[in-house]
Amino acid sequence: MSGHYKSDPWSIIEEGFHPAMQEASESIFSLGNGRMGQRANFEEQYSGETLQGTYLAGIYYPDKTRVGWWKNGYPEYFAKVLNAPNWIGIHVEINGEPLDLHLLKPVEFRRELNMRKGTLERTFAVSVGSQQIEISSLRFLSMKRDEVGAIRYAVRSVDFSGSVAFTPYIDGNVVNRDSNYDEKFWEMEEAIAMEGKGFLKARTKKTGFVTCMAMGYDIQLNGAGLNPVTEVIQREDYVGNRISVEVSEGDELVLYKYVSVLTSMNHDPGVMVKQGLEILSNAMEAGYNTLLLEHVTIWENIWTRSDIVIEGDTGAQQGIRFNIYQLNQTYTGRDERLNIGPKGFTGEKYGGSTYWDTEAYMIPFYLSSSPREVSRNLLIYRHKHLEKAIENGRKLGFSGGAALYPMVTMNGEECHNEWEITFEEIHRNGAIAFAIYNYIRYTGDRDYLSTHGLEVLIAISRFWRQRVNWSRERQKYVMLGVTGPNEYENNVNNNWYTSKVASWTLKYTLEELVKIRDSDPVAHARIMERTRLISSEECVAWEHIVQNLHFPYDREQDIFLQQDGYMDKEQRMAADLDPAERPINQHWSWDRILRSCFIKQADVLQGIFLFEDEYDLETIRRHFDFYEPRTVHESSLSPCVHSILASRIGRPERAYELYLRTSRLDLDDYNHEVHEGLHITSMGGTWMSVVYGFGGMRVSEGMLAFDPKLPGEWNSLWFKIGYLDRILKITIEPGRMVVENQQGEGIELSLAGSTVHVPKGEAREVSC
Amino acid sequence: MSGHYKSDPWSIIEEGFHPAMQEASESIFSLGNGRMGQRANFEEQYSGETLQGTYLAGIYYPDKTRVGWWKNGYPEYFAKVLNAPNWIGIHVEINGEPLDLHLLKPVEFRRELNMRKGTLERTFAVSVGSQQIEISSLRFLSMKRDEVGAIRYAVRSVDFSGSVAFTPYIDGNVVNRDSNYDEKFWEMEEAIAMEGKGFLKARTKKTGFVTCMAMGYDIQLNGAGLNPVTEVIQREDYVGNRISVEVSEGDELVLYKYVSVLTSMNHDPGVMVKQGLEILSNAMEAGYNTLLLEHVTIWENIWTRSDIVIEGDTGAQQGIRFNIYQLNQTYTGRDERLNIGPKGFTGEKYGGSTYWDTEAYMIPFYLSSSPREVSRNLLIYRHKHLEKAIENGRKLGFSGGAALYPMVTMNGEECHNEWEITFEEIHRNGAIAFAIYNYIRYTGDRDYLSTHGLEVLIAISRFWRQRVNWSRERQKYVMLGVTGPNEYENNVNNNWYTSKVASWTLKYTLEELVKIRDSDPVAHARIMERTRLISSEECVAWEHIVQNLHFPYDREQDIFLQQDGYMDKEQRMAADLDPAERPINQHWSWDRILRSCFIKQADVLQGIFLFEDEYDLETIRRHFDFYEPRTVHESSLSPCVHSILASRIGRPERAYELYLRTSRLDLDDYNHEVHEGLHITSMGGTWMSVVYGFGGMRVSEGMLAFDPKLPGEWNSLWFKIGYLDRILKITIEPGRMVVENQQGEGIELSLAGSTVHVPKGEAREVSC
Repeated sequence: MSGHYKSDPWSIIEEGFHPAMQEASESIFSLGNGRMGQRANFEEQYSGETLQGTYLAGIYYPDKTRVGWWKNGYPEYFAKVLNAPNWIGIHVEINGEPLDLHLLKPVEFRRELNMRKGTLERTFAVSVGSQQIEISSLRFLSMKRDEVGAIRYAVRSVDFSGSVAFTPYIDGNVVNRDSNYDEKFWEMEEAIAMEGKGFLKARTKKTGFVTCMAMGYDIQLNGAGLNPVTEVIQREDYVGNRISVEVSEGDELVLYKYVSVLTSMNHDPGVMVKQGLEILSNAMEAGYNTLLLEHVTIWENIWTRSDIVIEGDTGAQQGIRFNIYQLNQTYTGRDERLNIGPKGFTGEKYGGSTYWDTEAYMIPFYLSSSPREVSRNLLIYRHKHLEKAIENGRKLGFSGGAALYPMVTMNGEECHNEWEITFEEIHRNGAIAFAIYNYIRYTGDRDYLSTHGLEVLIAISRFWRQRVNWSRERQKYVMLGVTGPNEYENNVNNNWYTSKVASWTLKYTLEELVKIRDSDPVAHARIMERTRLISSEECVAWEHIVQNLHFPYDREQDIFLQQDGYMDKEQRMAADLDPAERPINQHWSWDRILRSCFIKQADVLQGIFLFEDEYDLETIRRHFDFYEPRTVHESSLSPCVHSILASRIGRPERAYELYLRTSRLDLDDYNHEVHEGLHITSMGGTWMSVVYGFGGMRVSEGMLAFDPKLPGEWNSLWFKIGYLDRILKITIEPGRMVVENQQGEGIELSLAGSTVHVPKGEAREVSC
Repeated sequence: MSGHYKSDPWSIIEEGFHPAMQEASESIFSLGNGRMGQRANFEEQYSGETLQGTYLAGIYYPDKTRVGWWKNGYPEYFAKVLNAPNWIGIHVEINGEPLDLHLLKPVEFRRELNMRKGTLERTFAVSVGSQQIEISSLRFLSMKRDEVGAIRYAVRSVDFSGSVAFTPYIDGNVVNRDSNYDEKFWEMEEAIAMEGKGFLKARTKKTGFVTCMAMGYDIQLNGAGLNPVTEVIQREDYVGNRISVEVSEGDELVLYKYVSVLTSMNHDPGVMVKQGLEILSNAMEAGYNTLLLEHVTIWENIWTRSDIVIEGDTGAQQGIRFNIYQLNQTYTGRDERLNIGPKGFTGEKYGGSTYWDTEAYMIPFYLSSSPREVSRNLLIYRHKHLEKAIENGRKLGFSGGAALYPMVTMNGEECHNEWEITFEEIHRNGAIAFAIYNYIRYTGDRDYLSTHGLEVLIAISRFWRQRVNWSRERQKYVMLGVTGPNEYENNVNNNWYTSKVASWTLKYTLEELVKIRDSDPVAHARIMERTRLISSEECVAWEHIVQNLHFPYDREQDIFLQQDGYMDKEQRMAADLDPAERPINQHWSWDRILRSCFIKQADVLQGIFLFEDEYDLETIRRHFDFYEPRTVHESSLSPCVHSILASRIGRPERAYELYLRTSRLDLDDYNHEVHEGLHITSMGGTWMSVVYGFGGMRVSEGMLAFDPKLPGEWNSLWFKIGYLDRILKITIEPGRMVVENQQGEGIELSLAGSTVHVPKGEAREVSC
């Protein structure tokens, strides 16, 4: 692994300035604190290629849908993640000339994302004539005070004498690169600059979200405060202060910039300026060092709970930490109105904030490595959108409370518009049902079912019922016109995975209804009332579908077929593809991709992964051996699932190779697209490929199990798992594993095939 | 048939002014002369709802493709039919107030499209205070001088005294309603107004087409020339003359406006102004009445050759004449660079000029009712685009000279961008091959094959070969991922119709190659050379596909299945649909349409229609009875084919009902969309439903045959047919038919089942 960034267990480090890599590095070095985030844009002016990105959680704009050919049911708009006013800006002039690394080539350029501390540091030197200046900046978005950001920006003269001017500012003149009609999305409401301070209040068009960003600063020369002459700059969309200071050889001029960023998600716009200035003033009172300390302390706690330690393989270690770091700075789980966008706070592509990725790839991570509330909030998010999902179903012709959750959403409404995805990639409904099941089995929070879960399950079951039809020809139910997780097939009939999650949802809903009826008749009656469920008709129909749904199957190969007719395709292997034609989605026309047998990401294998308990090892191996060689892994969500299954069936090399591909996808930029932002949602998959794959973790028949497969490259692996109110620390070394029960009552576990009781506070070792 | 327009055998007449119908009537009353055309916009100002449309054949703009999600292979642009500078404009002021029918409600409003003469006349009266003025206009686009248009615009004072001002003008400030990015498409090059004359020269952006429009006029008061004071108006994009005249009670003031419209399709832009002024001056010298007479004479000749006379049913008569009229004013066949756009000169929707409609629906009409050159030019058009079709194939991954003709084109390049259509609705290639076959059998022009036709057939055959693949499972070739003519199914496998035309193309190409080899070895060698055909490899492969192509078939029903899996759908009948949900394409989401069994337009039946000779009557009937009840006829191309087949299998009522639907589609606005323009290309289908359907015409085993089925509503039907250099007049009455051989040698025909020789210049009668 010799990538662009230096290998280091705790940091991402770039040495040397590489303008061609600037947008990629802006993604890689992104910062966030769950409430807001930003790409690693420079504080000072940069006239080279850059993608400016400042993002505020939950703030979006309904950009007019762009489409050549309208189809009934398309959404009117597409929720765009918005580039918000820029609050990191510090314009720097040296002897009146702007500091701009596109013009003044830096030397000794270095940046470091310190993942342990959650800080971004940048150091470099520039020459002014024959004189040298060293510059460093350190910034963070406080995890403690999630509406506060701070920057230390230092200019040190090596042998320079002359003027240095700082203009810390907030700039509302921002655009999205991918706006459909080149519109600006923000309208300025107020911009007031005064000496030492300024704030800017802006409102999004249409959606009417308001943000108020306030800034203040301190300036020190060689550690001592200054009261320089200040020019106050105020324009309609800009506030700033220009401070010019004369420096001599050896001087260090430091600007501490503090910002508060508030939004109408949490504040009344009427008092937002006042509250913003208060929060700013509290932060400034605490001071930069205290803010930093608070922030680092929170990160320490996060790492204590969610770190994964891999010894003997720095690339793998850095990869997994990068994933865990990004997940934690994207979503903290404190706010059930938020979710995990595909690019998090690192880019604007795709838009919307919620895909099925959340349920299929993120919830497992948060379930095991965060307090229960985090996953619960992700479930509540969907429960809050239930009415809109039913409305969406109605729009597409379903009735009686049938819910189709959107493919992409911000507020519960669909905002994606390719018919083959929007209308047909309906397996997302299954992932949402499965997440409820997953949550219950990891947390034991069965109350959630009667208060929220079953309503969602029933609405989804109603959808599945209407989405199948009886084929007189087959004497079976069929599910026509679907797109599975493998989006390289569109509008197919009887996609095995979709039918499988549909059937499973019906079965699970029926089972839970019976359990609740037997255990808590009052809760059961309440659910029946709330959902107007007609048990004698609806449950009977569901059961009939469970018993009679058609699943495509190939007798000769003894495998479940991805869809009807899959074997009619020319059967080729991905390895036989001309490397010059890969990725095929950049080289082949869409029809050619569709006609081919090539698979974008796990499809049948996604089902085998979810319902692994139902299949013996030989069946899993047979399906892996059939499907994986036909898979081109052109989705970021692909390698992780395959890595887990490869571990399971005893293919450690393949598992390890696929693991590196998922964990270092962005760091090594496998798909040449990291400049657009990071693949945040596949990072949950990376975590799974370690814990489920190499750790061999499963919940099987109500018992947590580990069956480790440590890669040969690793000396050891350890991580912590939250499960039914325990916290277990799992350490895996060649030939042995140790489980320490760090919190909660004693528990029976299945360790490498043996059932072992691990008492409270104790550890147990088994060989493996 | 009680529609909005008055029933009349030769005219379309609207009485009373209906602002809500204005855009619809602008479509209905459109004029054209093959070289240019226009919607029936008013000459004078109209501030109500209107769709301005002036169109120039072959002139287009490559509007940037609009698409939400880009797929490899999508074209960069979409060729838009352009709204060109407005040359009909005559601004009218009465006592200084603009005449505007949106403001001054007219009385006794009437317009008439006289189809026999090819003129548009409009008369109405308005009140100015208590005084009455009568206005009439008559305009035409000369069929004789196809770059000339003329308008007679008369204002008669009933009891009005005051000033009347005319401002004849040409206005370049025009837009397309449906431009993707609200761009203007024309740049002005020159606009010069002088007394009595003016011209405007403009250039299209990107494509660089140039037009020069020049105008002149005469003005007469009560039949006598006038020399009034003239105000010359010249702006960057506008030229006009304002002439104000005092009129008194009983006066008639008449403006004759003459225009020449030249384009760079036929003129060097450098001398275009000079040539335009010359053509204008010649036209003015000839004068309005002479121009009109020349024009009407051409229309008389057209009607002599292509009229269809239906006695006893004015609605049906008007309907068929409207279709024939529109076809003839859209395409005259003089220029092989032109084609027949879906809206002709009546609207801007869809863009592009050429769809498979040309080959499937128009060529049969022109073959029988126009000189051979007309159809030949349509074939040459595709031959000229062969290289681009091969290039298009290459873009999609085909090689070795395989051609995929575009779904929609202006200049041979694809300009449509829905993957399920652009990449998959490939049966268009089959229609292009079939048109060659059709042309040969109607004209006997076998030379065309060796000089042009076989090159096209070979390139298409090469495409079909690569588009199928061998299914090991079935031990057959399959054709995966196609969209048939029924666009309510997307990305299906083994669409019967597409496979049928593919197989037929291969077979026909092989047959013609053998025939030419045997009859003209030199021509054969030339073709082999030009196409680099490797007979021993390619022809063998084609033959193998012909022998081993999979066709879906349902044993139980004994029918060819539209595609694999069609019988898995819920089988419902269109008649059982809730009328409130029709047309389903306006009420159902796309996935629901796709999942349903409902058929947009003939698909299997399109194949049965094309290859009817291969099927016995019982087979045709069985397929009609299976598919037609499942067909919602939501394409303008649907009713005609079904009407023909209904005639064939002895369902006269259904045939008649479907005929009215096709022939009066626009006049009665069945689909509520006539305001966007007329369905020009389905008009060829209407003609077929009379001649093939009720006339029962076929070419079968090399003999022209008629097996008439006169609808009970009609007293008689007659039409003329061109076939192998003869012109035959066919008259059908209840119980008898007469065939008159008006031109060419004697011929054997099959009349109502008997073989009859009809000598040169004679007539034969048979009972039927």
